[in-house]
Amino acid sequence: MLAALEATVGGANVLTADADVEPFVTDWRERYRGRARAVVRPGSTAEVASVVRTCAEHAVPVVPQGGNTGLCGGATPDASGDQIVLVLTRLNRVREIDTENATMTVEAGVPLAAVQSRAADAGLLFPLSLAAEGSCAIGGNLSTNAGGTAVLRYGNARDLVLGLEVVLADGRVWDGLRGLRKDNTGYDLKQLFLGSEGTLGVITAAVLKLFPRPQTSATAWVALADVAGAVRLLASMRQALGDRLTGFELISGDCVALAKVQFPSLPDPLPGHRWYALAQADDAAAHSPVASELETALADAIGAGIAEDAAIAQSQAQADDMWALREHIPEAQKRDGPNIKHDVSVPVSRIPAFLERAKAALDAAFPGVRYVVFGHLGDGNLHYNLSTPPGSPAAEFIGQTGRANRIVYDLVAESGGSFSAEHGIGQMKRDELARYKPGIEIELMRRIKRALDPEGMLNPGKVV
Amino acid sequence: MLAALEATVGGANVLTADADVEPFVTDWRERYRGRARAVVRPGSTAEVASVVRTCAEHAVPVVPQGGNTGLCGGATPDASGDQIVLVLTRLNRVREIDTENATMTVEAGVPLAAVQSRAADAGLLFPLSLAAEGSCAIGGNLSTNAGGTAVLRYGNARDLVLGLEVVLADGRVWDGLRGLRKDNTGYDLKQLFLGSEGTLGVITAAVLKLFPRPQTSATAWVALADVAGAVRLLASMRQALGDRLTGFELISGDCVALAKVQFPSLPDPLPGHRWYALAQADDAAAHSPVASELETALADAIGAGIAEDAAIAQSQAQADDMWALREHIPEAQKRDGPNIKHDVSVPVSRIPAFLERAKAALDAAFPGVRYVVFGHLGDGNLHYNLSTPPGSPAAEFIGQTGRANRIVYDLVAESGGSFSAEHGIGQMKRDELARYKPGIEIELMRRIKRALDPEGMLNPGKVV
Repeated sequence: MLAALEATVGGANVLTADADVEPFVTDWRERYRGRARAVVRPGSTAEVASVVRTCAEHAVPVVPQGGNTGLCGGATPDASGDQIVLVLTRLNRVREIDTENATMTVEAGVPLAAVQSRAADAGLLFPLSLAAEGSCAIGGNLSTNAGGTAVLRYGNARDLVLGLEVVLADGRVWDGLRGLRKDNTGYDLKQLFLGSEGTLGVITAAVLKLFPRPQTSATAWVALADVAGAVRLLASMRQALGDRLTGFELISGDCVALAKVQFPSLPDPLPGHRWYALAQADDAAAHSPVASELETALADAIGAGIAEDAAIAQSQAQADDMWALREHIPEAQKRDGPNIKHDVSVPVSRIPAFLERAKAALDAAFPGVRYVVFGHLGDGNLHYNLSTPPGSPAAEFIGQTGRANRIVYDLVAESGGSFSAEHGIGQMKRDELARYKPGIEIELMRRIKRALDPEGMLNPGKVV
Repeated sequence: MLAALEATVGGANVLTADADVEPFVTDWRERYRGRARAVVRPGSTAEVASVVRTCAEHAVPVVPQGGNTGLCGGATPDASGDQIVLVLTRLNRVREIDTENATMTVEAGVPLAAVQSRAADAGLLFPLSLAAEGSCAIGGNLSTNAGGTAVLRYGNARDLVLGLEVVLADGRVWDGLRGLRKDNTGYDLKQLFLGSEGTLGVITAAVLKLFPRPQTSATAWVALADVAGAVRLLASMRQALGDRLTGFELISGDCVALAKVQFPSLPDPLPGHRWYALAQADDAAAHSPVASELETALADAIGAGIAEDAAIAQSQAQADDMWALREHIPEAQKRDGPNIKHDVSVPVSRIPAFLERAKAALDAAFPGVRYVVFGHLGDGNLHYNLSTPPGSPAAEFIGQTGRANRIVYDLVAESGGSFSAEHGIGQMKRDELARYKPGIEIELMRRIKRALDPEGMLNPGKVV
């Protein structure tokens, strides 16, 4: 079989030596370490199809992988050494940019940052934006239905796709590369492959939606007494700014303090408050009053007692500093020591009650536990992280991850929420899936899996 | 079986007399006339489940129906008299409005206009809007992935849904009524039921997204020399207005003339041009400069030679008049006589070339044929309709519908377009589906159908 694969993709693109294989069988967080029969790097859709067909003929499972930046081990092979890792980064062409149709056809291996910059070069915007954008591949973003900081306005990755090209489990190619905003000719098959983490097909290319490029921006850092105030502020700012409100991040005062300890040069625009919101407004118009509109909306909110104080960035540098404060929180927490992370969502209206109940339950279970809570409030998505209580051995705390997860996820479920808002399932959260999903939903997923991959050749052991 | 159904929903809600059944076995356009064993009107999700289970036990197929306003016969039973029509209009409760989460949970039978007005009562917007909104049911809108006039900004019906409740083919209920904007816990099952026209499950309720309510609007009627100019105007206005541009309709001068003949009291804001665009801009902000922004954008377009002239509505009455002119085109065409209709989409950038080629081919095939071309240019969606050549017998022209369809749909396919942009497949366009869809795509649809409805109990003979 390896000879057939080498004949397809060239010997240099079939890796089998341990040192060559190593970077592809370990996930980015280094939580999972698998083995692989080989790492195969096809250079075209036809080569992907041939590789998948060859593997199917030999009953060898395939693990698709993009930039290998996933957070749930979804692109890491299992320990058997039987699987092939199918790396898509050589499919890195932008096939077409159609400015009048506002679409871009890209191959799966194009890095997200390259998609963004090619769109900008064409005078348009591809809005998906997330921390790994320099190294993640667009195919992985689509396979995992990536989220990020602009979902409030533009939706998740799923919402940014008009068409897909997919290699099916038997190696045939489905060419669904349509650039249409309306097409009601039968089932919307692309939805099956978006977000299914490579378990139903291998995405090789996509037609992406592009948007008018923002030409005016305004950024504000807002101080709040509590999370209920943040929810009210979000509603009032959405009404005041409409779709110009593109980002609305919630950040606890504890997060700011932690970031300042680890990175003292970061700004602290409004010290001493319990909660903050970071609001971003953008406008496609070159001469837009968006900055004054943001200022008026915040003045109204302070006048109405919704917000305590607000600082509006007076320059792009100040705006960048505010975002840097937000974006340094994960790294600050990492430097601070081991921690337990959750990527949850609940309906926006239920976030204040959820946070109150979770704190009460966790304070009781883990006295002194420290909360690192931030996230995309506009999407109801919280990164709800717990750091080791001062004076406690970190290993002991981390050893209780399962117990902490149970407390958090049970309350999330009671609040009508999700235990994985944007990171997916991979291999990490399959047990949670089994626990929290209704049986009927798991059954439906399995029926879909059997319908599209009856032999279980695509990314087995992931999702469902 | 009828006794069991009567026991479930009450005798008054199982209709079998011809006169009672008649309105439910004929489609809105009166192109299809079926027969039914009975028309059953359950009043709750539990009753729907019970009816579907009973029918499954007796191997009796079920045809779900909402407001019965579909345009492709998707809700009309076949001629066998074996099928049950399952009418969902008694499921008409708004279960919840959550203003902070900007969501609304509605049952399938709520009329679209009622969804809109309940959202407005709560100070928010449900943006789906289409001609049948007074009588269509939201469940039908979701089952057919309805489009309409605000897709440019808000997307199709599919994009407006966060969660679904669905009765499966065996009568079990899947409760997927989640109100989350981010939830990556496995396959996005709701996508299967949205747009599948009742062939995979019966939608009984949904969680809908709500949006900030527009408080400022501006409407303009723009004269254009050609369609290429309309495409350029669309791009420049999207950049100038961003998401404030919520509608952008293309209308031929011939459409305006036809409407004026049939409805002389309609306005004619800029007589004598070959093409027109109707542009609508909305802003959530109460004191928005959107009207002056629209005016500036149009002045720039005229200055750049993109547009020939423009009239901006100076009052809501004038704006309503402009929209009335657009909305009277279908009725004017109907009064004018028999015609052949197409609901197509092609990439926006390819619309000018498509129109040119289609006109050349149809002029040759049907000398003197009259074109009634209008549609949602922002979505690439054209209602491309043909009226009888003057002096020709209408019956003879209509008898050549198949030949006209072939010319139009072949060119649509060559242009990367869709032969059914927003109306769906139903029973009317199944032959076109078989002709224009790649075999692999039809095979995938059938596999999904078998996975979710293995006995073929749900709306057989529709879609695939």
